[in-house]
Amino acid sequence: MTKPIIRRYEPEDWSRLWPLLHSTFAAGDTYAFAPDSTEAEIKKVWIEAPLATYVVFADDGSLLGTYKLQSNQPGLGSHVSNCGYVVAANARGQGIASTMCEHSQAEAIRLGFKAMQFNLVVSTNEVAVRLWKKHGFAIVGTLPGAFQHKVKGYVDAYVMFKPLAA
Amino acid sequence: MTKPIIRRYEPEDWSRLWPLLHSTFAAGDTYAFAPDSTEAEIKKVWIEAPLATYVVFADDGSLLGTYKLQSNQPGLGSHVSNCGYVVAANARGQGIASTMCEHSQAEAIRLGFKAMQFNLVVSTNEVAVRLWKKHGFAIVGTLPGAFQHKVKGYVDAYVMFKPLAA
Repeated sequence: MTKPIIRRYEPEDWSRLWPLLHSTFAAGDTYAFAPDSTEAEIKKVWIEAPLATYVVFADDGSLLGTYKLQSNQPGLGSHVSNCGYVVAANARGQGIASTMCEHSQAEAIRLGFKAMQFNLVVSTNEVAVRLWKKHGFAIVGTLPGAFQHKVKGYVDAYVMFKPLAA
Repeated sequence: MTKPIIRRYEPEDWSRLWPLLHSTFAAGDTYAFAPDSTEAEIKKVWIEAPLATYVVFADDGSLLGTYKLQSNQPGLGSHVSNCGYVVAANARGQGIASTMCEHSQAEAIRLGFKAMQFNLVVSTNEVAVRLWKKHGFAIVGTLPGAFQHKVKGYVDAYVMFKPLAA
């Protein structure tokens, strides 16, 4: 596979993004968004509310993943960024999450952010926890039973944080 | 002083609430909301977005404080509540924050929440940290330099958490 192409989201991407986001959130094992969230609700949180949304394509044009970037808090907390990443089911194990994580850190720095925070990393999502650690994020907090996993019930979630060096 | 009266916010309270919220956020030492936030912006975060907003009055009708209650996350994280509290400057040291904290926990339980989380307790706000600990909240995470204090610059913030027993 050649290097994936990452670019800013454009409105014509939505028809391909929505099925990916819908199936991801419907699984109820990684994101808090209600599994039965409507298309409009997801469009709001993934496209409209964030500062920027990105899409990742293979050279054959297939969608590999997407991520969103935003301030984690308003005003006096707005120097800390927050991201959410989704990898297409058929693109797992190809380093797409790593590619997006690196890209998002570069973008966050470019946009003036000084750190990045993930607020609710599901503890049972071991692949993600290991990956974020590999990319320099530390678990700075544990939220007891803060995520209602669709299969496993109430499980802990982590707050993960990384200072960004310009 | 007789027992303060706590009740749900009503639209006619806004003209008295706004100066209190404005002066609190303008100080830039406790909440992330930008010190120069507009009235519409603050009305959105304090009144419109939360699940419920409460006001506290003395028996002479003076405003003592206010708090807001909401889900901390959507869907699969929505069993954890979040609150923000503001005490009027001339009502400090009278236990108003404690009264609101107790009231908010009872309300959260009544509304079906299983826990309460504060996402950004400013570490230099020692009175608040001590008070939340007294009310059973634990520091479950530390966010390095996550708050840009108007006077002290970048300071740490805490994530605090309390399971709620029905």
